Amino acid sequence: MPVPGPGYSITVRVEAPPSASAAGDLTGAIGRVGGVITAFDVVESHADRIVVDISCNAVSANHAKDITDALEALPGVAVRKVSDRTFLIHLGGKIEVNSKVALRNRDDLSRAYTPGVARVCEAIAANPEDARRLTIKRNTVAVVTDGSAVLGLGNLGPAAALPVMEGKAALFKKFAGVDAWPVCLDTQDTEEIIRAVELIAPVYGGINLEDIAAPRCFEIEARLREKLDIPVFHDDQHGTAIVVVGALRNALRVVDKQIEDCKIVVCGVGAAGSAIIRLLLHKNPGDVIAVDVNGIVHQGRDDLDDNLRSIADTTNREGMTGRLHDALVGADVFIGVSAPNLFGAEQVATMADRAVVFALANPDPEVDPMEAQKHAAVVATGRSDYPNQINNVLAFPGVFRGLLDAQARGISDAMLLAAADAVADVVDGDRLNPSFIVPSVFDPAVATAVADAVRKAAHA
Amino acid sequence: MPVPGPGYSITVRVEAPPSASAAGDLTGAIGRVGGVITAFDVVESHADRIVVDISCNAVSANHAKDITDALEALPGVAVRKVSDRTFLIHLGGKIEVNSKVALRNRDDLSRAYTPGVARVCEAIAANPEDARRLTIKRNTVAVVTDGSAVLGLGNLGPAAALPVMEGKAALFKKFAGVDAWPVCLDTQDTEEIIRAVELIAPVYGGINLEDIAAPRCFEIEARLREKLDIPVFHDDQHGTAIVVVGALRNALRVVDKQIEDCKIVVCGVGAAGSAIIRLLLHKNPGDVIAVDVNGIVHQGRDDLDDNLRSIADTTNREGMTGRLHDALVGADVFIGVSAPNLFGAEQVATMADRAVVFALANPDPEVDPMEAQKHAAVVATGRSDYPNQINNVLAFPGVFRGLLDAQARGISDAMLLAAADAVADVVDGDRLNPSFIVPSVFDPAVATAVADAVRKAAHA
Repeated sequence: MPVPGPGYSITVRVEAPPSASAAGDLTGAIGRVGGVITAFDVVESHADRIVVDISCNAVSANHAKDITDALEALPGVAVRKVSDRTFLIHLGGKIEVNSKVALRNRDDLSRAYTPGVARVCEAIAANPEDARRLTIKRNTVAVVTDGSAVLGLGNLGPAAALPVMEGKAALFKKFAGVDAWPVCLDTQDTEEIIRAVELIAPVYGGINLEDIAAPRCFEIEARLREKLDIPVFHDDQHGTAIVVVGALRNALRVVDKQIEDCKIVVCGVGAAGSAIIRLLLHKNPGDVIAVDVNGIVHQGRDDLDDNLRSIADTTNREGMTGRLHDALVGADVFIGVSAPNLFGAEQVATMADRAVVFALANPDPEVDPMEAQKHAAVVATGRSDYPNQINNVLAFPGVFRGLLDAQARGISDAMLLAAADAVADVVDGDRLNPSFIVPSVFDPAVATAVADAVRKAAHA
Repeated sequence: MPVPGPGYSITVRVEAPPSASAAGDLTGAIGRVGGVITAFDVVESHADRIVVDISCNAVSANHAKDITDALEALPGVAVRKVSDRTFLIHLGGKIEVNSKVALRNRDDLSRAYTPGVARVCEAIAANPEDARRLTIKRNTVAVVTDGSAVLGLGNLGPAAALPVMEGKAALFKKFAGVDAWPVCLDTQDTEEIIRAVELIAPVYGGINLEDIAAPRCFEIEARLREKLDIPVFHDDQHGTAIVVVGALRNALRVVDKQIEDCKIVVCGVGAAGSAIIRLLLHKNPGDVIAVDVNGIVHQGRDDLDDNLRSIADTTNREGMTGRLHDALVGADVFIGVSAPNLFGAEQVATMADRAVVFALANPDPEVDPMEAQKHAAVVATGRSDYPNQINNVLAFPGVFRGLLDAQARGISDAMLLAAADAVADVVDGDRLNPSFIVPSVFDPAVATAVADAVRKAAHA
């Protein structure tokens, strides 16, 4: 059963008798149905009653209902109101646009707006490169989606994707001082998406593609990289690949293996899996075995699209065939970006000695990390409640900070690899151990280190 | 000659001898070439020299050069650096994107981003109207341009238009708390502009079209109003029309005339002029005579496009022909949104008694306001250095505040007229006089009054 977490947190306002046992009765009732109390505030106190706000974490809407039912069932207790704290913080949206210049008086207005602004416009018209210096293009990234692959939820469309893009924009600012703006496109046509991004590009110094389904995402990215003079980065691909490759470097240090000697199984060959494989290949691994829903990817399969074909051509040197369980036998590393509960401890036992398992399917990993630990030396997941969380937020803010500061016109694999090394290097030798192969997402050193690495690679 | 203003303001750092007369010598030199000093700061003082920052307003780049040359010519004085204050405040752009929610720890992250955000996405997917409540759509307007008619500068393109759109966004926040975002489109094709705005619309609660050339702007606006379920407002048209119609109401109160008895000449039939005429016609004026570069607009002209044809069909009841000077004879009101210096005091003298003259061409009006005053009872311009400035900032922030608060799906002429009346009503009878027919752009009552009026009209 999932654990109650702050992603589903409610605040219940209840009226209760002012008895000595009231608090104990209320918290006891919640505890008995599995709610986790995070705050208890008496907001009113009267001779005949008290009014209390109880905040607690739950698992689901049904569980929240169980909690309020349990409270209602107590003698003399009435539930007045239930607030969902997640929805509360979303009211009116999570980001805002602010002026960086004062507009207190006529003089301010004359400089920031007409007539003064006219000279700035004319300067940019005369020298378009000045837009990177004299406008928000200097520090601004578009977070572009078509809503076709929102989180793990699938094709929810552009409006329903907006809360994710707003959150992303908030993270960009928080971790790297980047101004990011949601662009949720009301189309899922590849050509229209490409053209729309081209049309809006003058305002931005970079494009972050987000939650666009494979294989459409590959063509959109490739074509936009050709057309635009600003970097285009698909976070689901390259953000994930950077963190995985960085984390793998540290994991191999822990188990004392060289990547040149390792057989690496990558399960899931969508946006993330494909980008992980492509970035890994620069590191000269012993071999990579890609696996999708139809089994091991090899040149003899007749169901390969362009993306899978290019992966078949560059991996699986020995032409292995079969299913995931076959691929795992003797593998040094498993990297999963696919689906929940594909295997158990017994399959991990068939891997090579001192195996590394990255089970990144969210929210439920390919293998239960507690089971994997029985045989693997290092285990990582995408979840925040286990050690070694592989989280894109370790990459994308710093990557764009570096790109913007370098005024980069594109992005190369050399920059992605530099970013991966930077993520790995934040964990110095003293701190490195099987439960700490990647830094915390709240470590402020990460974005700075990644930005420095990307900026240097851009200038090189 | 134009007057030095804060739109062209420089700060000159000079080294000068530490003599008792140094300050007088420096300021005297600037004064002799017509610079207006706004600040004088000694930043270093030594036995052998002082270093001074002198800020002053100039007219043009040549004039700024005259000023620094005049300083250099003084004995013992060296100019170290000249900073253009307008460019300084534009460095890095004028707006930024900030998070409205705290992201201090894992719990915050779980609510604002994954996993909590997933439930908000699913709620919107199930009920798309929730986007107006749970996302930035609640409070956000796109400021859309193709850069084809930037201020009075013409077709500078989308990148060079961005400083204006940023300034507009800053004004939206300052005056009405609206989050506005620049959308500078890299196309001037009508169909592409319409489609691009349609595609980006999910993020926005309203569309403000800006600096798009006529006649393209009419079709873009009309088609988008049909396609979208959010209001579409072309500020160059309707923002100007609202303020002009509001100001005219007060001007006619000053001269004690009824609009039903007035002959109104509108010179310039582009975006602004056409919208002014259309809004005025709702007020049942005596007659409107439209004039463009080819003279008075009448049904007999063979050079009329769709826009001019519809104006010819609804104005000029008596079928007047001729030039602007002919139209002015006996006119009660002149409204110019056209070109500089079209006539002088002698033409104003041919207008009716107690004439009203709105000469709004920028920066140089159709008639010098000092000349117009000789015969007209009320004179207004678009300039900030004369009384009665007709400025769109009196309209657009409040209009969108009202539209967003009403969650309006469109915009009607009734709302525009309500906004015009609201602008006029902010000037109460005690303050109304020939030099005060519109409120100050810094009067905080304006946006609130306009927003209330628009919201009520939207609900009606």
